[in-house]
Parts: sequence; C-alpha cells; structure tokens
Amino acid sequence: MQDQIRTVAVIGCGVIGASWTCLFLSRGLNVLIYDPAEGIRESFEEYLQVAWPALAASGSVEDVLAKNYKFIDNLESSLSEADFVQENGPERPEFKQALMETLDRYTRPGVVISSSSSGLPASGFVGRCQKDPSRILVGHPFNPPHLVPLVEVVPHPGTNTTTIRTAQEFYRSLGKKPILLRREVPGFVANRLQAAINSEAYSLISRGIVSAEDLDRAVTSGPGLRWALAGPFVMNSLGGGGGPNGFTQRIERLGPAIRGWEEDMLKHRFDWSEESVSVLKKEALKWLESLDWEGYNRKRDQMLVRLLELDSGTSSP
Amino acid sequence: MQDQIRTVAVIGCGVIGASWTCLFLSRGLNVLIYDPAEGIRESFEEYLQVAWPALAASGSVEDVLAKNYKFIDNLESSLSEADFVQENGPERPEFKQALMETLDRYTRPGVVISSSSSGLPASGFVGRCQKDPSRILVGHPFNPPHLVPLVEVVPHPGTNTTTIRTAQEFYRSLGKKPILLRREVPGFVANRLQAAINSEAYSLISRGIVSAEDLDRAVTSGPGLRWALAGPFVMNSLGGGGGPNGFTQRIERLGPAIRGWEEDMLKHRFDWSEESVSVLKKEALKWLESLDWEGYNRKRDQMLVRLLELDSGTSSP
Repeated sequence: MQDQIRTVAVIGCGVIGASWTCLFLSRGLNVLIYDPAEGIRESFEEYLQVAWPALAASGSVEDVLAKNYKFIDNLESSLSEADFVQENGPERPEFKQALMETLDRYTRPGVVISSSSSGLPASGFVGRCQKDPSRILVGHPFNPPHLVPLVEVVPHPGTNTTTIRTAQEFYRSLGKKPILLRREVPGFVANRLQAAINSEAYSLISRGIVSAEDLDRAVTSGPGLRWALAGPFVMNSLGGGGGPNGFTQRIERLGPAIRGWEEDMLKHRFDWSEESVSVLKKEALKWLESLDWEGYNRKRDQMLVRLLELDSGTSSP
Repeated sequence: MQDQIRTVAVIGCGVIGASWTCLFLSRGLNVLIYDPAEGIRESFEEYLQVAWPALAASGSVEDVLAKNYKFIDNLESSLSEADFVQENGPERPEFKQALMETLDRYTRPGVVISSSSSGLPASGFVGRCQKDPSRILVGHPFNPPHLVPLVEVVPHPGTNTTTIRTAQEFYRSLGKKPILLRREVPGFVANRLQAAINSEAYSLISRGIVSAEDLDRAVTSGPGLRWALAGPFVMNSLGGGGGPNGFTQRIERLGPAIRGWEEDMLKHRFDWSEESVSVLKKEALKWLESLDWEGYNRKRDQMLVRLLELDSGTSSP
C-alpha cells in the first residue's frame, strides 16, 4: 500500500509541516503544500535551506528532489492528487473538525489522512466527516520530524486496520520509528512522559531546590545521556543488574524507596498558581537569558544526525 | 583544596564503588578500598578489566595507574591516610549511621566524607557522628560514575561551605559535572525526574495503552534523543520557538493543554497495587526477555564515550 504513495499533501506549513515536507522531498516524494498564511512560501524556502544540509548529511539526497513541491490554493481542485495527507493545522478542536471535514470530502476514497496533532486524539475532530472517517488517525511526529524518528500512530475507535497498517508502513519506509497506541489518551505517550518530567522540574525550580541551569545539567549529564540509548524499561533492568530479571529486582528492591519519592513529589506537585508560575519563569529566564542561542538550531540538527548515526552503528540490546 | 587530594578512600566496592575507583585511578589518584564482602578483590579486578578500555578511549590513561590501589582491612589504622572519602555502603539508614560514625572518627579533621547515597539525604545518617559532621555531604553519582558526568552534591543543613566547595572542585577536577542542591529532598533531582517518567511509563503499560517495547522506543527515538543534548528548560524554550521567550511562550500557549494531560495522568496514576505490579512485570518481561543482553554493558560504555565526545565537540547553546 505505501508503495503507491507518490504524492503527499501537507496541510499547514508551519515548523512541523515544513519539516515533514523536507523529509518527504528527501525521500523522492512529491509534495502539495496548503497553507493560507501570508509569506508561507518564503518561510518554507528558508526552512528548506537550513534543513537540507542536515538531511543530505544523513543520506544521499539529490538537490533536484528539493524542488518537487508545489503550493496549492484550492483544496477542492487539488486534493484528489494526494495519495497520503499529513495535516498540521492549529491544535483547536473546532478548527480541526472543520478542516478534517474538508480533507475527508476532497480526498480519494481510502487515502490515509494523518494528523500531526500533538495531544488531541482523533475522536475529538472526526465527528463531522461525512465520507470515511475510518481512514483518519493521528501520526504525531517529534520536532523536527525530518530528523527525529519517533511517530506516534494513534487510531480513534473507528479507524480501520488497513489505515493503521498503511500509516505504519509508510512512516517506516521513510526511516521513521512509529509506535502504536492501542487506545487514545490525551497527550499520547511521549508528551505525557515529557509532561511528567517537566512537572517535577517546574516544582523543584519553584521551590528553590536547584537552579534551572543545574536542573538541565542533571538531565544532560545524567539520565538524558542514557535515554538516547535505552528507554525506561531497559534502563530499569540495567539498574537492577541487567537482563530481564534486573527489572523485577529493581521493582522489588527499590520499590519502597521509589514510592516514598513519589509521595513526596505528589505532596509538592507544581500547582500552576500565579505565584508558582511567576517564580518558575523568573528562575528559568535567569538561565535561558545567559545562553548563546545563535545558530543553536543548526548545531542541534548536526548533533542529532551524528547521534542517529551512532545509534544505527550499534544495535540496541 | 582539591589539589591536596592524592589519596581517596572508597568505602564499599560494589558496582558504584568499583566504578568510582576506576575513575579515581584513571586520574592518577591513589585509592584505598574497604569492603568486607567475600570475593571483593576478584570482582573489582574483573570490573577494572571491563571498565579500563572505555576510560582509556576517553583520555590518556597509563596502565600503571590502574595499579595504584590497595585493599584495606582495618579502618582505624588506614583511614588517616585518606584525603577524601567516597562512601558507597548499603542504602539502609541504621547501617549508614554506624558507618558514618566510624568514618568521622578515623579520618583526619577537615577531610571531606561524601556519600554516594542515591536518595537518602545526609541528615538521615550523620546523627551519631561525634567529631565533625560538618564535612559530610552526599555526592551522588550516576551509574557508571567512571563515564556519566553527573554528580549531585547535597549538603545537609550542618554542612559547612568549605566542604561544599571542596567536593564540587574535586569532582570538577575529575571531569565530572556536579550540580548543587540548595536543600535536601528525598531522591534528590535526577532520581525524582526518573521516578516521574517511570511512574507514568508503569501506568501506561499496566493500562495496556502501549507495549513496553513501544514505550522504550517513544523515549529513545523521541525526547530521549534530545535529552542528551538539552535539558527540560532548553527543550521547553526550543518548543516555544527558541530563545528565552520560547519558554514563556510555551508555558502560556501550551499550559492549558499540559495541565489537562497532568490531570489525566494524576487520575490514572500507577497505584503499586499487587494487580498493577503483576501486569506491569508481565508486560515488561515480554519485551525484556526478547532482547539480546550479551555484551550490552560494554556496548553501552562505548556508546556513552562516543556520545560524550560528541557533546564536548559542540558546545551547548
């Protein structure tokens, strides 16, 4: 099925849509771009200029491929050309409902419509679709999608299995690493895990336990170094002595201590009160304002590419 | 002060103590090792064999340095030789209290005693010290300490500022990246952040939302790739468009959505009931038993060394 995907429609060409477009182009696909925002061509072309070298560094990419896109002004007349739709509209339920109704109406039957929604499940925006909402699901990427491999595939209760399989195979054919959520949950998996760590980070900062700089360092010089190589379950096993038994050992040996930490974290949970948010912002800005941000996005891309090379060079356990 | 540290006493030579010893040796320090466990010399020598190549790969290390250690049997007669103590005993308050009393008694005045305690604050085990508990604090490393740079420096309310400064400077002189906790909290910073992510991971698995394999992939192919390069605060800023304002933007724009995810996470919080733990173990083992664990620790060390090289080659923002 994914072999027949030659033309992708990218709906919404902000940062996420632009990055998806770069990825699709680099794999030889044609891309139709729809975005009514002013100056969108210029901002996309700027993005492409910056993104292309990193994509070229991560594989063989012909320069001609970077030109296989066209901006479309009319969904009604152009959407029938699309073999796959990647939607990246604003995260507002009403907006997405209306947009999905249109995408469903003008695409050919069976064409998969995948939403980059970062936390809103598809059942929240397929309600008005008249033709076939069973080919709609969420395909949530991670920023920037042209480099970070994760895609969260999240069907709604009415999504059919062919759609799920087609989306997974299509993303895999692009070099992505899709994961499948069996049921919808708000925030999906990766954003919930991020929210968990961020919430405790906000709490520690607003309580004055550490500086924001030290908190960031606690991640980048500690567990963050390992999270690029091993997820929570493999890490738990290693922490318990390695192998499958390591996990059980860790849960049994450290369980009581961990529950104590969890209770203390719950007690001091970040409360989003005006006062807490104000302290949080003040402390965070003290650190963030001291940084040299120039060129950081490009540097980050280069590092990500090298990190991904490293990862493909050595297999996981 | 840290220039005068030539001999370190490593108390307890399990995995953490052995790894600290390798690091100290690789920096030209002399190490006194105390551990009454049977077979401890053999297990340490095995550890050294495995760890040394990774240490050698990360810097110039002379083979002769790997021999600058001696096992001691008697704390009373040998501890006076130590210029710094790194304690790695079992994480039991009564045990640590008695051990600290002994270490305090037999070390020279002013010598810093740092505990590798992974979550228990020092105020929980300095109570019986007669001589000078003000030179005691926690210096919690991350496994394996000879490679992972993070050390959490956690003074108790009575720790003096010279001790804090000496510990920080000593760790920095070894190439570590110490962070400072201004107040004691159970689990310190990095283990609390890990507990936050693990707790949500356990919940998602026990609820059947994703497989353990997909959950690990959600981290290693997604945010985990970025956590090696940027901590929560820099990542939040990038997510909001970059620069210091990115953080404020993100909090303001995504705050309501994030609070919704947090509420849902709290509602479905992992409850540690027998049933939940049983489902968690079953699902985790299904994935962990399918892995090829052989040689993984060595491979992980190699990858960590290369990742750290990558990091030192490009400066953070």
